[in-house]
Amino acid sequence: MTGETTHRLGVLGSGKGSNFVAIAEACAAGSIPARVAVVLSDVAEAGILGRARALGIPAHYLPPGPYRTKLDEAAEAAYVAALKAAAVDWVLLAGFMRILKGAFLRAFPGRVLNIHPSLLPAFPGLEAWRQALEYGVKVTGVTVHLVDQGVDTGPIVRQGAVAIHDDDTPETLHHRLQQTEHDLYPAALNLLLSGQWAVRGRRVVGTGPAGKGGQPQP
Amino acid sequence: MTGETTHRLGVLGSGKGSNFVAIAEACAAGSIPARVAVVLSDVAEAGILGRARALGIPAHYLPPGPYRTKLDEAAEAAYVAALKAAAVDWVLLAGFMRILKGAFLRAFPGRVLNIHPSLLPAFPGLEAWRQALEYGVKVTGVTVHLVDQGVDTGPIVRQGAVAIHDDDTPETLHHRLQQTEHDLYPAALNLLLSGQWAVRGRRVVGTGPAGKGGQPQP
Repeated sequence: MTGETTHRLGVLGSGKGSNFVAIAEACAAGSIPARVAVVLSDVAEAGILGRARALGIPAHYLPPGPYRTKLDEAAEAAYVAALKAAAVDWVLLAGFMRILKGAFLRAFPGRVLNIHPSLLPAFPGLEAWRQALEYGVKVTGVTVHLVDQGVDTGPIVRQGAVAIHDDDTPETLHHRLQQTEHDLYPAALNLLLSGQWAVRGRRVVGTGPAGKGGQPQP
Repeated sequence: MTGETTHRLGVLGSGKGSNFVAIAEACAAGSIPARVAVVLSDVAEAGILGRARALGIPAHYLPPGPYRTKLDEAAEAAYVAALKAAAVDWVLLAGFMRILKGAFLRAFPGRVLNIHPSLLPAFPGLEAWRQALEYGVKVTGVTVHLVDQGVDTGPIVRQGAVAIHDDDTPETLHHRLQQTEHDLYPAALNLLLSGQWAVRGRRVVGTGPAGKGGQPQP
């Protein structure tokens, strides 16, 4: 990829890290002009840390502080410092179970990305697949969005639809959503890294050949 | 269709009636075991009335009364009387711009169906395609649902996804949504008329070969 910048990604996760692996593999395959420079977790025993180390990627547990759903001020500073030390230019949330606000977002303005297992604005928050089943929708999906000060409210980069089957359980639906996530997150990231996009109102639109709009079919 | 009941449908609409035509055509083609017995409109000059008469279907303008978004009590009684006189067993809303409550729904318990141009619970209410564009979603769609006392809140029978393109305007998106509506409404109605379904919690699930869950692809 002569002449193309190699971006440096920081990934934050609290769980197994399957989206991290999908992104790391896309980087390794050359389909994303980036490398994962560092992985951080608020859970010491999170699978994402071991999977990163197995791929030779620096991975650190950073204690989140006393709160249950956010980082405290000192922890937020430590996360920012670790990402800056790794010279990260984009931050990807991949199953990171804490809300980021204020100082963190100001450190990476417009450069924090999240993936959520529903078609936002439907079913924000926890266990979106369970919310979708309980509401009785027939179609749900996955959203990749830029992170702003709200919870699951930032401008949407990509969405993919996933059908709900009559015999779905939370587990079977969650599994199919994850399969769509693993395609959608690298695709959304690729658009953003291309630079060929703009935010108009709340709409993220492509400004070059990479911008192709929605992906309604899983 | 030996041994199969022919259902009698009442259709309420305020506009051009393209969903009414799709349903009437599916009935005429024998793909729905029903006929449209009467069409009612709250708008004297609505296109749906002329299109019904052209197909030989009784069609009446019934004045809605003084309110802007609902029928008054006398109007509601007149609509119910006209539907009962036509021996209707299912009522289909097809672009009917007034909220039905109380007495009307009690007259046809669990037998009133509506179509809405979004993937509910996202974007209830008016001009859902415009709401979707302004929010910046990449996937929207169409929902067929049973009508309850809320606005666009009843149990969902079928949904179909529609991709939003970067160059979509409210008009182009609305047009694509309508194309999906014309497939989805007859399909949802066919499931309901088959009787092979049940509501579990809020989930409408098939109990026979007709129950195939979601339709994520337009």
